[in-house]
Amino acid sequence: MGRYIYLDNNGTTEMDAEVISFMHQYESLYGNASSMHSLGRNAAAGIDWARGEVAKLIDGDESGVYFTSGATESNNTVFSIFRDLIDDGSSRNRIVLSSVEHPASIETAKYLRKRGYNVDFAPVDHSGRLDLDKYKALMGDDVCFVSVMVGNNESGTIQPVKEAAEIAHSSGAYFHTDATQAIGKIPVSVREIGADYLSLSGHKFYGPKGIGVLYAAPSVPMRPFIHGGHQENGMRAGTYNNQAIYGLGKAAELALKNIEYEHTMLWQMREALRKGILDRIPDVIVNGSDNPEYCLPGTLNVSFAGAEGESILLYLDLEGIAVSTGSACATGSLEPSYVLLAAGLDTELAHGSIRFSFGRFNTMEDVDYVLEKLPPIIDRIRKMSTRR
Amino acid sequence: MGRYIYLDNNGTTEMDAEVISFMHQYESLYGNASSMHSLGRNAAAGIDWARGEVAKLIDGDESGVYFTSGATESNNTVFSIFRDLIDDGSSRNRIVLSSVEHPASIETAKYLRKRGYNVDFAPVDHSGRLDLDKYKALMGDDVCFVSVMVGNNESGTIQPVKEAAEIAHSSGAYFHTDATQAIGKIPVSVREIGADYLSLSGHKFYGPKGIGVLYAAPSVPMRPFIHGGHQENGMRAGTYNNQAIYGLGKAAELALKNIEYEHTMLWQMREALRKGILDRIPDVIVNGSDNPEYCLPGTLNVSFAGAEGESILLYLDLEGIAVSTGSACATGSLEPSYVLLAAGLDTELAHGSIRFSFGRFNTMEDVDYVLEKLPPIIDRIRKMSTRR
Repeated sequence: MGRYIYLDNNGTTEMDAEVISFMHQYESLYGNASSMHSLGRNAAAGIDWARGEVAKLIDGDESGVYFTSGATESNNTVFSIFRDLIDDGSSRNRIVLSSVEHPASIETAKYLRKRGYNVDFAPVDHSGRLDLDKYKALMGDDVCFVSVMVGNNESGTIQPVKEAAEIAHSSGAYFHTDATQAIGKIPVSVREIGADYLSLSGHKFYGPKGIGVLYAAPSVPMRPFIHGGHQENGMRAGTYNNQAIYGLGKAAELALKNIEYEHTMLWQMREALRKGILDRIPDVIVNGSDNPEYCLPGTLNVSFAGAEGESILLYLDLEGIAVSTGSACATGSLEPSYVLLAAGLDTELAHGSIRFSFGRFNTMEDVDYVLEKLPPIIDRIRKMSTRR
Repeated sequence: MGRYIYLDNNGTTEMDAEVISFMHQYESLYGNASSMHSLGRNAAAGIDWARGEVAKLIDGDESGVYFTSGATESNNTVFSIFRDLIDDGSSRNRIVLSSVEHPASIETAKYLRKRGYNVDFAPVDHSGRLDLDKYKALMGDDVCFVSVMVGNNESGTIQPVKEAAEIAHSSGAYFHTDATQAIGKIPVSVREIGADYLSLSGHKFYGPKGIGVLYAAPSVPMRPFIHGGHQENGMRAGTYNNQAIYGLGKAAELALKNIEYEHTMLWQMREALRKGILDRIPDVIVNGSDNPEYCLPGTLNVSFAGAEGESILLYLDLEGIAVSTGSACATGSLEPSYVLLAAGLDTELAHGSIRFSFGRFNTMEDVDYVLEKLPPIIDRIRKMSTRR
């Protein structure tokens, strides 16, 4: 294979070479971290180290870091905690989440709603940002928890999580934020946000797949989600995934160290691509916010009028460029992106949208290459469409 | 560190060098397997391959292999499926499981019982084997599913799963078996057992941690356990853990290829250790079954009267020998093993029990070394205990 330009870093990232070599180095530390023998105890010490690195990354307490199989599980767990509390008779029996949360939250909420639980979805404005007035109107003393993500995986829009947390707290509800897409791209502090819970996934910031974290601030409700052994204070059973946890710890260390430089680099590449596309291709809409402060730096979501997103993706793939039509978690459905529709985009344009997402290993040359290959592809697809 | 003899293979195993190099080889296949671009599609092809290897290993259908984060999640999922069905008003609203199931099942059952669901535990005889008469008496047209493991993690006792499945089916209940400890040690066929569901974990047979399978036979009930993306036919959301799945596939391939030879080797080492201990150390009880057909080949669980298990473990550890006092999942509790108590062992002897569990990388020299180091340790601990 020739040149391969990977612009689907919101879907997943390539592991950093430092993470890989760190994980290889500790392959011999395979003991069950719950075992009492020295191999088990040494494995456990590595897990404690990783827990500390994650806590530093999100500016939280080590004791609140619960390892999960990924952010999807973490999001599910938060809903499960409050499902238990509601079943136990809590008068706070309503859940509120933004309408642009990740499917891991949206689908869990829909599942609970189907089973008779009260769930409300808070709308977003045309930039995909939470409408704080409408959100506030949904609050009340029956709300148990609220979930609003830091940054959206499709549009890249950054949510007003600090304000949303304050509003939730002032009505007595707990606040969960899904920081999966934001970690490693912008600084995320649970203390600054005022988040009671936070979800993240290792593979979105150059760490391994199959490992994530649910963070729970001290003294917020926790309940076991996966039952069994005593791991994670009895909250998340299952043999520790040592190697992945070590890799996550290393990825957290690197993310914290590199955050400022990477933010700058990602934004430069994103902006160069945005301007280049607007210069070269007519009838284009850039989705998400126009305000740089509200944009995840590496995400560019563009709708090409009269061109179907999946066709664009496949033609770019033939040129060695990997992009996405939206959330990988929605692949297989022919539905247009609910995130873009929620922001008011019409169905046809939503069908013609492409997400370019940059990462640590991209360069400005990648942008040039895309700007060379993309315009003729759009032109060709548009011509084919009008011929029909 | 000098010689290190790892006899805690029921706790977890060291990855096979072939599995490791296979995983390293495909580290570059990092794409999100739900993505449409070629890197994603290639990643997905590797996952299909691994699914096939797992299906072959357990003699099941590829379409029934659902990847999870491990057997603990798989066991939890089976309970969750039937919880949903019961909540939806099924007249079959009782769950039956053996009293020696893994904590992943026992604790999930206890959680559901606390929430008002009907759960019965089927007792075992003195060898730790399911009492089929008492089990049969627990059946009825209100039982939705039954869970009986293939082989026990602590005692090594093999359960009469084929008979148990027949009895469950004749009363109209579904049958789940937790095969986590049996896979790679004895042949396991879902068709021969007649299992509707089966759980397994990669790290118990020289594959990676953090990956497992829930197998569900065609047309048995399935419900999403972790909600979100469309992965695994919408049943188990979350980005595919490519590398771990590839490693699991390789481990399955090796397990199937080596099963006969390994069964023989494990049994020889286990028997040499058993006979050596009985020859050299007085007041010893070998837990589990006396019938070789009912024993997992690599597991030897022994109670040393008048000696505390955790002390034995720590002294052996100082000599470079890793063993366990029981399930790693129960570490931290000072309770004696519920598995041994269920088989009628008294509390003091249960406290003095040690599990030696052999694996692919052990040799007869390891047995000799243990037989040299163990007798003086038991002697010393017994003398310290009587002095008190």
